Amino acid sequence: MSNQFNTDTRLAQQLSFILEIDKAKYVLRQTYLTGKGRRENDAEHSWHLAVMAYLLAEYSNEPIDVAKAMLMCLVHDIVEIQAGDTFAFDEEGKKSQAEREERAKQQLFSLLPDDQAQALMKLFDEFVANETAEAHFVHAMDNLQPLLLNDSNDGISWVEHGVTVDQMYARHNKTKLGSEQLFELTDALIKKHAQLGHLIEK
Amino acid sequence: MSNQFNTDTRLAQQLSFILEIDKAKYVLRQTYLTGKGRRENDAEHSWHLAVMAYLLAEYSNEPIDVAKAMLMCLVHDIVEIQAGDTFAFDEEGKKSQAEREERAKQQLFSLLPDDQAQALMKLFDEFVANETAEAHFVHAMDNLQPLLLNDSNDGISWVEHGVTVDQMYARHNKTKLGSEQLFELTDALIKKHAQLGHLIEK
Repeated sequence: MSNQFNTDTRLAQQLSFILEIDKAKYVLRQTYLTGKGRRENDAEHSWHLAVMAYLLAEYSNEPIDVAKAMLMCLVHDIVEIQAGDTFAFDEEGKKSQAEREERAKQQLFSLLPDDQAQALMKLFDEFVANETAEAHFVHAMDNLQPLLLNDSNDGISWVEHGVTVDQMYARHNKTKLGSEQLFELTDALIKKHAQLGHLIEK
Repeated sequence: MSNQFNTDTRLAQQLSFILEIDKAKYVLRQTYLTGKGRRENDAEHSWHLAVMAYLLAEYSNEPIDVAKAMLMCLVHDIVEIQAGDTFAFDEEGKKSQAEREERAKQQLFSLLPDDQAQALMKLFDEFVANETAEAHFVHAMDNLQPLLLNDSNDGISWVEHGVTVDQMYARHNKTKLGSEQLFELTDALIKKHAQLGHLIEK
């Protein structure tokens, strides 16, 4: 992008990145805001996850670095500015997701000074690899948040996409890695919405 | 609010708060997104500030606890769910702002378990009092972010509200407390938009 600040400094690189990620506010997800409102965007979704990570850290299976988990929440979706949002149950889209997001990651983070680019790419890779306590917990947040919104909205997003109980468990089983306690809540909500007919049993 | 999770546990309190703050996504600010887009909401604004606090911490006048500053960014505006957004240059609105926000703070945070309610109220009070290094820096972020968006948008929000150069300095002087370096950038941007006629000189 053009350098509108007319400087070639470290600060100018940081400001370019800061302006570029404003576009995350335009990336729409399949989840609706409470009150059956409009669709949620990536920036506000990420804000919500970060607050949740702070408030719910006590339910993590393993001790976590809360600050690291919060930062991971804040940046976990910004590659979607270029790669687009991939709906959790879009099997076709998920096939190309890794490649699209890897390319976006390189382009986006390289706007930053190298040390910060490396740090954020590493954190994003850690989220994707999902092998650390923080990544497990952030994935649990990333699953739980749309579940709570959908629960408050009579499951409209699930109904709209004809989501099945099996698909829900396939996705939400990951929550167990981050938090057994929050998986119990998840399990109860899936059963509730299956009974209500908002999720397809087959 | 009603306890839809039918439990009376600590987790249920936390979930009530988490659902309630979803409403921050509906609180609109006077700033427009890049590309002369729609108006920005509090949740995505707070996300943007938290990422900025992480990236720009090196410009703080004093050493800061970045995690604390990030959390302060994330929660600094949620009282506006009940108190409404007060435009930076709305002198009438600002007279009642403290009282409205204090009432909202009590109502909103009391949804949480007491320990977390106290912790977040303390952090919010620290932001408002603006006496610590983290509060100074978060105020600098809170000033700089709309300045960057307005700068990228030919100052449309300033033009719309007939904002003067004096009003800009009265507000942005606070940035100096957090970061002399970012105030230099601020000063340059104010001068640029005064010259372009986006801010009124008088």
